[in-house]
Amino acid sequence: MDVTSTKNPLVKDIIRLRTKQHRAASGRCYIEGIQPVLRAMENGVRIESIICAPELLTSETAKAALTRLGGTEQQRVLVSANVFRHFSERDNPVGLAAIATPRLAELPDLNLDGQSILTVLYRVHNPGNLGTIVRTIDSVAGAGLILLGPTADPFDPACIKASMGAVFSVPIVALKEPDDFLTWCHRNHVQLVTTSAEATSSLPDARFSYPCAIMLGNEGQGLPPALLSVGDISVSIPMYGQASSLNLAVACGIVLYAARSANPCRKSSTANRTLP
Amino acid sequence: MDVTSTKNPLVKDIIRLRTKQHRAASGRCYIEGIQPVLRAMENGVRIESIICAPELLTSETAKAALTRLGGTEQQRVLVSANVFRHFSERDNPVGLAAIATPRLAELPDLNLDGQSILTVLYRVHNPGNLGTIVRTIDSVAGAGLILLGPTADPFDPACIKASMGAVFSVPIVALKEPDDFLTWCHRNHVQLVTTSAEATSSLPDARFSYPCAIMLGNEGQGLPPALLSVGDISVSIPMYGQASSLNLAVACGIVLYAARSANPCRKSSTANRTLP
Repeated sequence: MDVTSTKNPLVKDIIRLRTKQHRAASGRCYIEGIQPVLRAMENGVRIESIICAPELLTSETAKAALTRLGGTEQQRVLVSANVFRHFSERDNPVGLAAIATPRLAELPDLNLDGQSILTVLYRVHNPGNLGTIVRTIDSVAGAGLILLGPTADPFDPACIKASMGAVFSVPIVALKEPDDFLTWCHRNHVQLVTTSAEATSSLPDARFSYPCAIMLGNEGQGLPPALLSVGDISVSIPMYGQASSLNLAVACGIVLYAARSANPCRKSSTANRTLP
Repeated sequence: MDVTSTKNPLVKDIIRLRTKQHRAASGRCYIEGIQPVLRAMENGVRIESIICAPELLTSETAKAALTRLGGTEQQRVLVSANVFRHFSERDNPVGLAAIATPRLAELPDLNLDGQSILTVLYRVHNPGNLGTIVRTIDSVAGAGLILLGPTADPFDPACIKASMGAVFSVPIVALKEPDDFLTWCHRNHVQLVTTSAEATSSLPDARFSYPCAIMLGNEGQGLPPALLSVGDISVSIPMYGQASSLNLAVACGIVLYAARSANPCRKSSTANRTLP
């Protein structure tokens, strides 16, 4: 066992990685759970260390995952169950985590074709919502996510968890201002789809053309006028009840599946690879 | 000002109402936020007390809500901002809350017609997911929610918050065992729709007939074999990416909107009434 004391510097480092400041300054993130760790490794994220608590890693899934993990001897750090529980924020930690140096994508990294669906989120606040959306983007084989303005951190532990590790397979681009993105869309003939309760066309009637970029506002305010005005088409989700809006991740899922259903693609070649 | 000390029994009562035990024993729940409190009152939930922190209730929305709230003098309790912040679990509390005696529905309370969509959740664990689903059910004018087996509490503060108060407008029935529900469905000609990754028909091709009951399993295991076997039709959401599943609330939203899009209904007559 390499680490048996909660006073070990590794423990302090992991706890500091919960803060955006420390992640930004060190370029690293903390990944917990079998699926997220596997997903990061399978997608070529550079792994600094793999942290195992053998006493906790008891399920068959966990053992199968460990066998498939690979990684060098130098990367493996064995910690006691007590230490793992100390830095984990979960009720029943499975005993597998990693520290990694993930990277965001740039616009030229995004591959576009006649089936591409991009997702654009403006000033999304909640890391759980963000992670849930990234998980959905993966499930429709989305071409990527563009985060505009100040935003939740995709490598926040809550986002990684909600994404089930999809933050490591979906290309994510973060931009302070929308101008470069809008120019890039124009040059690449990307249809800009705005979403708004006041949109003229209701979702079932929306005419997507591909590649398209589906733009959603944040949890409180929706899209700002400057972005609403650039849309090639504008869609709303019909509301039949007392409520006037949906949870952002649910709304995003409904629009993404509508866009994908109108233009189904082949399943990703790596689909299900993360299930042992 | 009625309450200026955090040692007041009201404060202790509110904090105890965070626990399922105290809610069950007292038949009461704590509701925080403008929209959830208005939604409860508009839907005839019995309100024991309305708790206002005038120093916090400063927005125009808040003032408009207060005017519309009604309620008797006896029901109003004015508390200091300090006291409100003490019992609130939010970062920026708006200063409006209530204690209410909500009630669950029974199967005979559910109104069925040729457009009805019911939602059935089996052993849902997470109150946030549950609340998000209830919010979505309202938005498709769903006929109600049936919770089967041990489940998150719909009147958990996290569920009320995620539902935006829709737990007070959507009829919710909780049943320990599915038998009564299945008999009731059979008698009322309700189509049972199971959801599963192994389903034979993919969502866009699903042939809903109404009234229908869409059954979803919990976050980890999906539906048990005993429930999968009773379905009249079985549908899956196509997965195109590396992931093999979606967040439960997102999956539920996609299926509910597919079922509603195939049979659009009129908007609820109370739609948008909760927005000042």
